[in-house]
Amino acid sequence: MPASPIPGSDELGVFIAFEGGDGAGKTTQIEQLREWVLTQDREVVVTREPGGTPLGQQIRALVLHGDHVAPRAEALLFAADRAHHVATLVRPALQRGAVVLQDRYMDSSIAYQGAGRDLDPQEVQRLSLWGTEELRPHLTVMLDVTPETGRERRGEVHDRLERETDDFHERVRQHFLALAAAEAHRYLVVDAALPLSEIAEIVRDRVDEALGRGRQ
Amino acid sequence: MPASPIPGSDELGVFIAFEGGDGAGKTTQIEQLREWVLTQDREVVVTREPGGTPLGQQIRALVLHGDHVAPRAEALLFAADRAHHVATLVRPALQRGAVVLQDRYMDSSIAYQGAGRDLDPQEVQRLSLWGTEELRPHLTVMLDVTPETGRERRGEVHDRLERETDDFHERVRQHFLALAAAEAHRYLVVDAALPLSEIAEIVRDRVDEALGRGRQ
Repeated sequence: MPASPIPGSDELGVFIAFEGGDGAGKTTQIEQLREWVLTQDREVVVTREPGGTPLGQQIRALVLHGDHVAPRAEALLFAADRAHHVATLVRPALQRGAVVLQDRYMDSSIAYQGAGRDLDPQEVQRLSLWGTEELRPHLTVMLDVTPETGRERRGEVHDRLERETDDFHERVRQHFLALAAAEAHRYLVVDAALPLSEIAEIVRDRVDEALGRGRQ
Repeated sequence: MPASPIPGSDELGVFIAFEGGDGAGKTTQIEQLREWVLTQDREVVVTREPGGTPLGQQIRALVLHGDHVAPRAEALLFAADRAHHVATLVRPALQRGAVVLQDRYMDSSIAYQGAGRDLDPQEVQRLSLWGTEELRPHLTVMLDVTPETGRERRGEVHDRLERETDDFHERVRQHFLALAAAEAHRYLVVDAALPLSEIAEIVRDRVDEALGRGRQ
């Protein structure tokens, strides 16, 4: 009988978040892992933030395609998307025992908004923790990508903003790595420059362990 | 030379919020006060929450006309509306010396969400304080309306939900009164059942004092 790998959790499912800079290969790895989890006879839910619910898609459209949004308002909108997503989709899935594979979670808000330097990353984290009633992933797969590799994967052209862009992505990366270092037992940090099949194997081994722990 | 009535404030304007239950008569009082402030040779900005900006109107539409929104997501959306409204409209108006008359501010979030019992009112307040970088009104005019009077003014029909509705509105009212009692120097509580002209006079006297203090 599968159960949560975190002692004291009242959920039967397993919540796995994928984090990392743009071009880290999250989508590919989530798809590979999804196929493997299905072979383990577990329900899999693949989802993402922002925009994992219909309401979230409307919020995402407001933030990304609207006019200027004040920095704190933007952080609150992303936290609202997350709160609704967790309450209406992620928690119900976990409560019925599913394995939830999620593309980006609160670490992305912390890393990107922290790198933007407008807001205190700890305050951004507090919003997400409040909004989600402190739901943390059982495992976060952190695909660590250098600004150079990320840029190549995203297919950006070299222009005069390239230097600044790399600086920004390096700040994002350092925020991600600091989050992983602070709670190492909950993180799997993988070099995104490794061959895709090798990454998939490393991730699968760790997830296999997480799924198996509940069956002992 | 007009200045903020609050020592240490870096703003030249005066921020006056109107709070109270539905049917308290806020709109009428704001309009009367607006006309009087204009005679004092001050710029007046009349605004409201939720929905005081174009982004805010879109957020308001999501909350009020969309599908079910999780309670914490709803609180975060209202806080986002407020954060954007304060950053892009209220603070700029105060910084150029205007008198801002606002229909509902954070007390409404605290009172209504507190009365709904889903969320801790103090946590709701913390979201708004963070979102607005702790902008508090110089004066809050609290139009205190009983559930009975509010119901008559709203023109509701008597139906089987009436009793529950009155209970809810009484809880909202008690939250409002508790907020006013906790910081009495920043509040003017007026019985909304008084004649409209009498309320207008009481409000005008207090606002006159607030505007005058900066001229001494």
